[in-house]
Amino acid sequence: MIEIPARRGRALRLRNGQKARIVNTNGQQVVDTWALNADDLGEFMSMEHSRVAIGRIIPGVGDALVTNKRRPILTMIEDTSGGIHDTLFAACDRWRYELLGHQGHHDNCTDNLAAAMQELGLAAPETPAPLNLFMNIPVLDGNRVEARAPVSTPGSYVALRAEMDCIIAFSACPQDMIPINGLAMRPTEAHVEVLD
Amino acid sequence: MIEIPARRGRALRLRNGQKARIVNTNGQQVVDTWALNADDLGEFMSMEHSRVAIGRIIPGVGDALVTNKRRPILTMIEDTSGGIHDTLFAACDRWRYELLGHQGHHDNCTDNLAAAMQELGLAAPETPAPLNLFMNIPVLDGNRVEARAPVSTPGSYVALRAEMDCIIAFSACPQDMIPINGLAMRPTEAHVEVLD
Repeated sequence: MIEIPARRGRALRLRNGQKARIVNTNGQQVVDTWALNADDLGEFMSMEHSRVAIGRIIPGVGDALVTNKRRPILTMIEDTSGGIHDTLFAACDRWRYELLGHQGHHDNCTDNLAAAMQELGLAAPETPAPLNLFMNIPVLDGNRVEARAPVSTPGSYVALRAEMDCIIAFSACPQDMIPINGLAMRPTEAHVEVLD
Repeated sequence: MIEIPARRGRALRLRNGQKARIVNTNGQQVVDTWALNADDLGEFMSMEHSRVAIGRIIPGVGDALVTNKRRPILTMIEDTSGGIHDTLFAACDRWRYELLGHQGHHDNCTDNLAAAMQELGLAAPETPAPLNLFMNIPVLDGNRVEARAPVSTPGSYVALRAEMDCIIAFSACPQDMIPINGLAMRPTEAHVEVLD
């Protein structure tokens, strides 16, 4: 099991057909997730293209997330977390925390993606909208969105199968100013396991 | 009045405080809309950041759309079209039409953005998810999305005020294979008027 440290990112390579099992070790921890074509980092998993492809805003078991070229890159093959994930919200960034009133540096998922890619000697060409695993953003009355605590329990997981050789990147979201990582607002680590 | 020709794009400069009134000349025509900071094209209107900022998936009068640096770039100040717009779906592209079964070239909003920017001697660094004015993508039961015909009537419009000097770009969506531009599936022109 590979750790995604609390408030930090982690990227790794997946070959076509390999699976990544993302474990919500302590429960209620959001894990921002990205995937990029290993042979062309300009092609990456896109939430706005995936919503068109799957006809829903929340992917479920059997759904293939697609790239900005509309090709499947990850298929959700297992989910024991309650099926609540988010595709609507941007990764948090320094400006998000500034607007919430934080002064000085705050860990954030955007910087975590960049740092995780850099550990592999790579750079993402942009920060795509992430697949926010375990994040609970209901759409109420067909329009209003609310940021709620996750429903996922400790040890629950999602498994994603690579549909091409790809880089998969994660950030254990460091949000501690609103209860998106649970009412305790205490970000924790998560884990990922790669299966052949 | 500046024409956005049927199936084509158009970009123009807006100074901070100027307004663009986008007229749905014939009704039921989707107009993909982008905005980029005139001084830094790497900062652009972002749907995933705007949903966080406004707390809804559909902007309404008084809402400020924000950039990928979470700064207001366009505020919706008028809307006579029925208030139905989309922030969830990617701009159409060559792959969208290929997947729908079209063979050979098909006009598409992604290429239209690039061509419209090029007419100003500029290039967008990527194709941001657009604000799809007049596009009707309801979220049903908090999850399922459906592509429906617009509710906008001929001559109805949306007015957007620039909150910084920006490039605003449009595409009169050439989608003619599903009824997103009305049941007749016949893309038409739209118009834009710049007001001080």
